[in-house]
Amino acid sequence: MIPESRETWSLHPKLAADTVPVGDLPLSNVAAMNDANYPWLILTPRRGGAVELIDLVEADQARLMQEIAMVARALKAITACDKLNIGALGNLVPQLHVHIVGRRRGDAAWPSPVWGQTPRPYAPAAAARFVRQVQGQLEAAEDFRKAD
Amino acid sequence: MIPESRETWSLHPKLAADTVPVGDLPLSNVAAMNDANYPWLILTPRRGGAVELIDLVEADQARLMQEIAMVARALKAITACDKLNIGALGNLVPQLHVHIVGRRRGDAAWPSPVWGQTPRPYAPAAAARFVRQVQGQLEAAEDFRKAD
Repeated sequence: MIPESRETWSLHPKLAADTVPVGDLPLSNVAAMNDANYPWLILTPRRGGAVELIDLVEADQARLMQEIAMVARALKAITACDKLNIGALGNLVPQLHVHIVGRRRGDAAWPSPVWGQTPRPYAPAAAARFVRQVQGQLEAAEDFRKAD
Repeated sequence: MIPESRETWSLHPKLAADTVPVGDLPLSNVAAMNDANYPWLILTPRRGGAVELIDLVEADQARLMQEIAMVARALKAITACDKLNIGALGNLVPQLHVHIVGRRRGDAAWPSPVWGQTPRPYAPAAAARFVRQVQGQLEAAEDFRKAD
């Protein structure tokens, strides 16, 4: 297990409000953006006070890359999307978080970025189905802990 | 040295047209986007055929994270920007490339993403000055080779 930071960590209230919980990888919280326009996952390293990627120590940066790749493969397997968009912006929510979005030619924003577009909330059953699919893919990974 | 891919690599013509050369790190080409609105660097791994981050082997993914962090620190040191935006999108240019952008509150797109905005080309002397600043920061890094 990677130890938690001494500084208390909790998911930023804006991220918590905009997402549905998926679970935890050794470094990062995994959540699904509540936007039915795109299959969209968010990885948030549980490191108190981290804003930029370069705020993480090198071992955490390396682990984050592994978790990004794992979640990107899971999303690609589920959606057979045309393109993955991966980004750490944080212009609105300062807590370091990484977006992993499955894009399709002709989706609601294509070929523009998804950030700043108006979301289309999931029907509850559809959100739950997407979350279960992601959990199913990530359960093959060691140390994944499903959200309750 | 990290060996080149067997498949021939060259910078995508659209990336070449939109940027000014900075140099090479062991894995990635480094270039500056010709947009004076934001200090904006692009890392392109010299791996023929790579489109997605998950097309890279794990050692290359790890190396790419190191190079992203190195270039992000350099950009932050030069610009004292308010926020770094880091992203791999590729909706328009399929060759795998990573954007590292220094954002300021109140810049031309703030708080929206920079992708898809109209660029404001540098005056030639200003582009050369920015490139020299980046080269100066990266020269401290082992294995950086300046563009001619």
